[in-house]
Amino acid sequence: MPPFPEAAHPFDAALALTRQDGTNYLGATHPAWANMVGPFGGITAATVTQAILDHAECLGEPVALTVNFVAAIATGPFVLNLRIARTNRSTQHWVFEMQQTQKDGSVESVFTGTAMTAARRETWSANDLPMPQVPPPETLAAAHIPQGVEWLTRFDMRGVLGGLPHTWDGAESILSSSESSLTQLWVRDRAGRAMDFAALTAFSDIFFPRVWVRRAQWVPAGTVSMTVYFHADSAQLSAVGSGFVLAQARGQVFRNGFFDQSGCLWSEAGVLLATTHQLVYYKE
Amino acid sequence: MPPFPEAAHPFDAALALTRQDGTNYLGATHPAWANMVGPFGGITAATVTQAILDHAECLGEPVALTVNFVAAIATGPFVLNLRIARTNRSTQHWVFEMQQTQKDGSVESVFTGTAMTAARRETWSANDLPMPQVPPPETLAAAHIPQGVEWLTRFDMRGVLGGLPHTWDGAESILSSSESSLTQLWVRDRAGRAMDFAALTAFSDIFFPRVWVRRAQWVPAGTVSMTVYFHADSAQLSAVGSGFVLAQARGQVFRNGFFDQSGCLWSEAGVLLATTHQLVYYKE
Repeated sequence: MPPFPEAAHPFDAALALTRQDGTNYLGATHPAWANMVGPFGGITAATVTQAILDHAECLGEPVALTVNFVAAIATGPFVLNLRIARTNRSTQHWVFEMQQTQKDGSVESVFTGTAMTAARRETWSANDLPMPQVPPPETLAAAHIPQGVEWLTRFDMRGVLGGLPHTWDGAESILSSSESSLTQLWVRDRAGRAMDFAALTAFSDIFFPRVWVRRAQWVPAGTVSMTVYFHADSAQLSAVGSGFVLAQARGQVFRNGFFDQSGCLWSEAGVLLATTHQLVYYKE
Repeated sequence: MPPFPEAAHPFDAALALTRQDGTNYLGATHPAWANMVGPFGGITAATVTQAILDHAECLGEPVALTVNFVAAIATGPFVLNLRIARTNRSTQHWVFEMQQTQKDGSVESVFTGTAMTAARRETWSANDLPMPQVPPPETLAAAHIPQGVEWLTRFDMRGVLGGLPHTWDGAESILSSSESSLTQLWVRDRAGRAMDFAALTAFSDIFFPRVWVRRAQWVPAGTVSMTVYFHADSAQLSAVGSGFVLAQARGQVFRNGFFDQSGCLWSEAGVLLATTHQLVYYKE
């Protein structure tokens, strides 16, 4: 693994890439963002967002991103291929794929996706997703962080609704099977790193699987595809600073191994920052 | 342009591709699916769904699809590059890009995306998006089809809520600026072609821009990215046959040139077939 800059915040350290040639970048998974298996999906997605923004030919700011977790990402180095598919007058389209060398020496794809950036202009605007009324974060206790999931310790989470059970032993669960899988939580970077497009990408993947809330039961589950629509521009993200974001997600349809989820992120001032959707695999 | 099979339904004719080599297919836009500029986006997206299903190595059935309309597709031939990025035990990931030769001889990308197929197994399931109570399609008048939009004549649409104005002259509009941009309509193939994954893909793009309903005003608008999550399997789609589908869409956030839309498709029997999302460009 390449060395990480010691002084950097672990988020920026994880996003660091070394450009190899025209479209290939070398990176590596970072231990601060380890999930139960492989890295937190949000950090992988954020790596691409940052690579696009850092690209010398990048036009505008992110407006749409779709990522696919096509296989478990192994701890260690990866190569990100990122290229511009099309540049228009005010919009630009990106295609990317992440590969890892396997134990047998073969090179396999682990992550694919597309993104769009745009130079936005002021137009008529309306928000039909106003922030729900919830208690302010300061009045809520910090969420219980289950042991052994390193990336969760990077965040300060304050649960509002639809939290994780304290234990997974069924009988002692604080949850009961629910009519909906709605979760609302306040979340911010624990080390005070300011909000930006990469962070907003990572925050979009912060929800644990809806199927756990809906069934009050632990089953293996993992995101297979995530889409983020960025509604905020960089000025609106700067205004968030290191403040809390209200994150909301709800499962829609659970059927034969896959469910979809619809989510939103608002700043504490009530500005809708992003809408996000996932398709999630689950077992049993 | 290659000749189209005369006997085929115009939907199947438009989907016809000729394989050139390992990953490249030759196709062409079909006049029956012309939009105001270029082809109906849903037919382009459906072409990819069908190409994946027709691929000799296809594993399972579609579960997720994201397409990006990266530039206007010109009337005429195109080359679709479609490849498998990864095959797992029960899931498979696809990457595709459509290119057209420009007047100056250069080859440019016009369409990109990713898809996922899976061999699904029966699991615990739940639908948190029950079909809304609406009048049955037989009791509703066929929607007014604006002149000059050929693809609309391929469908039998019965508006329930949030329809198009009859005229676009402002004062005579039947619409008024709305608190929400909710549209519900019954829709089926006018020529009785049966529902399948390609048709479900096309039906997912059937909604006119939400910004027209929300503002009661015509402004230039076009889909730039669409995601479809397929919840139905082929047996559930077969059961739809040539029946009506209830299609619902609602805009979420309209800001500085882009809005997002969230949609659902149900069979007349109330089976949730797909959820779908779009990011749409609009002017002014």
